Amino acid sequence: MSPWKAAHVGDHFDQIDTPALVLDLDIFERNVKCLQDALAGTGVRLRPHAKSHKCPDIALRQIKNGAVGICCQKVSEAAVFVDAGVQDVLITNQVVGAKKVSHALDLAARARIGVLVDHEEQIRAFAQASETRKVKIDVYIEIDVGMGRCGVDSIEQTVALARQIEQAPYLNFMGLQCYHGSAQHYRLPQERKDAIAATCATATATKAAIEKLGIKVERITGAGTGSVMLERDSKVFNEVQAGSYIFMDRDYAANQRDGLDLPFEHALFIKSAVLSHPTKDRAVVDAGLKASSVDSGMPAVWGRDDARYLKASDEHGALELTVDSTLKLGDAVMLIPGHCDPTVNLYDELICIRGDKVEAIWPIAARGALL
Amino acid sequence: MSPWKAAHVGDHFDQIDTPALVLDLDIFERNVKCLQDALAGTGVRLRPHAKSHKCPDIALRQIKNGAVGICCQKVSEAAVFVDAGVQDVLITNQVVGAKKVSHALDLAARARIGVLVDHEEQIRAFAQASETRKVKIDVYIEIDVGMGRCGVDSIEQTVALARQIEQAPYLNFMGLQCYHGSAQHYRLPQERKDAIAATCATATATKAAIEKLGIKVERITGAGTGSVMLERDSKVFNEVQAGSYIFMDRDYAANQRDGLDLPFEHALFIKSAVLSHPTKDRAVVDAGLKASSVDSGMPAVWGRDDARYLKASDEHGALELTVDSTLKLGDAVMLIPGHCDPTVNLYDELICIRGDKVEAIWPIAARGALL
Repeated sequence: MSPWKAAHVGDHFDQIDTPALVLDLDIFERNVKCLQDALAGTGVRLRPHAKSHKCPDIALRQIKNGAVGICCQKVSEAAVFVDAGVQDVLITNQVVGAKKVSHALDLAARARIGVLVDHEEQIRAFAQASETRKVKIDVYIEIDVGMGRCGVDSIEQTVALARQIEQAPYLNFMGLQCYHGSAQHYRLPQERKDAIAATCATATATKAAIEKLGIKVERITGAGTGSVMLERDSKVFNEVQAGSYIFMDRDYAANQRDGLDLPFEHALFIKSAVLSHPTKDRAVVDAGLKASSVDSGMPAVWGRDDARYLKASDEHGALELTVDSTLKLGDAVMLIPGHCDPTVNLYDELICIRGDKVEAIWPIAARGALL
Repeated sequence: MSPWKAAHVGDHFDQIDTPALVLDLDIFERNVKCLQDALAGTGVRLRPHAKSHKCPDIALRQIKNGAVGICCQKVSEAAVFVDAGVQDVLITNQVVGAKKVSHALDLAARARIGVLVDHEEQIRAFAQASETRKVKIDVYIEIDVGMGRCGVDSIEQTVALARQIEQAPYLNFMGLQCYHGSAQHYRLPQERKDAIAATCATATATKAAIEKLGIKVERITGAGTGSVMLERDSKVFNEVQAGSYIFMDRDYAANQRDGLDLPFEHALFIKSAVLSHPTKDRAVVDAGLKASSVDSGMPAVWGRDDARYLKASDEHGALELTVDSTLKLGDAVMLIPGHCDPTVNLYDELICIRGDKVEAIWPIAARGALL
């Protein structure tokens, strides 16, 4: 990491060195409240996904505002949050290998921990290790609801796995993980509606088949920022896992034109600066591939219409300028990342501003927690 | 970062937890020797680019093997290497803003430091600050040799900048940065030959125009892994900056079919593992966007032909399997990243193996050094 800091608490916005990851606290707080308000009184719990922010300061604020706990994607990521005081973490992923199972059970001895399974071998490993160690852990079966990644895609097989979990004394069968990741990014509202309707039909049928055996399906959980209102209103889901809503990246915001989504606002920015301005129609900023993930497209230039982010190389971002552009060497350029999750994972700290002052600096403590 | 380590020195390869960034030391050492041997006796110096590895252990080995120093892309990155004992760093980038100029001069007081300029304002800032502090710093003019990013694109303007540098008592005009980044990735050898021939013509003409004023152009520097033999044989360049040759990613290796390039081998791998195997034709590994940058395409599966890496999401990599695939849940899968530089920047450590043993663990100390 850098031997010096991009900013210090109390700095003016102009003093923040570049590139830096900047969180606008007023907007962040509105986003947190917006989703919590939308869920209030519906009986649907919020368990926001912490893979988006990897930041205990944010998780603790989400919980203080009503979230029941958080989701993580990796055992080592979950460990960072448990160390910071989060008491309820669902690892929305399969945990495979003796080392990882052992680390997950270490955490389960200290906090409420859940894991996903989609294969009998995963259940066998957790059944044996949890019994040996006398540590209880929550287990959810992941259903492939249409995204074609992990998850079981037959009711028969899901029922067999539920029965296997029930038979293990230290495994606590909780329910079904029904996350449709790709649906989050469908541009047409009707496509998203259809995808989540199909997800709900699968979840309902699977739940019924399991409960026919007398095994309670307490939780149907899933959903992300791009579809969360659909799951909220489904009468099928009783927990949602949106994560990106606190930040709103360029890709999610592109869906908001249609009225299906809550009015989340951009709260996360990359502050960059012009380091070269070689021609009238081109400037280069100091934020490239190591400052903004481009897997969902280039970052957007924020708050000015005389520049467009055209191309990223490792440490450069080439901007195309209009003929009347006023951008100068050294000027700050605020960028909205295309995809917030892998972008946040590039930084060690979030520079939190309110108005034009740096109010706090929050460590992205689970950055690089890959194991 | 993860609260526990992926591996320890002495571990067997099978014990390395996943995902982890693995360097094969035998291959790495062959790559280092291969380029050094290719330059021996040519009068062309090697100043390898450290933005690829961000690892002082590697830089010090490159220097021990004959490199004159290193390149960095950021001032904070350079600081990490100077702290580790590297005495000669060229920052191949424009350094803009009072804070950054001041940090660069801090380093120049402790080691030989160079920076690039392509605008009179950058020179003015360094001229004033270096004179105030009585600290000398090397300055190179960046020429736009065809990649259309930073750099001056007229000889007249370059000559004016050289004169401006010469007049500043603490600025040491060294020569020209003539890096053609895009040429590194042209697939056809003839395209690369043409691009570097044009680069050399521009460099030669610019040098002549500057030297006509009695200003010595001591150094013409540039080149990368995809074109380094062309610059070596150019009689124009006297320093080359290849970086990725030590690792060889999938993209650079795709150029090696044609005999233009040195026989660098893949030395850098992501060790991943199968966490889900939901259907006969699909498995999912635990290395996604946060374990491998996909800006130059998906990683390649190494050493097996029954699986292809199809799609990356944040923490998942979906593999397409052949009908006779033998891949099982929990199996290790070695991946070759599409682009090594931003992939290395995702990890805190390089797990260095020799044969099937972990011989060393090298911190990627400049990871995240963005400033």
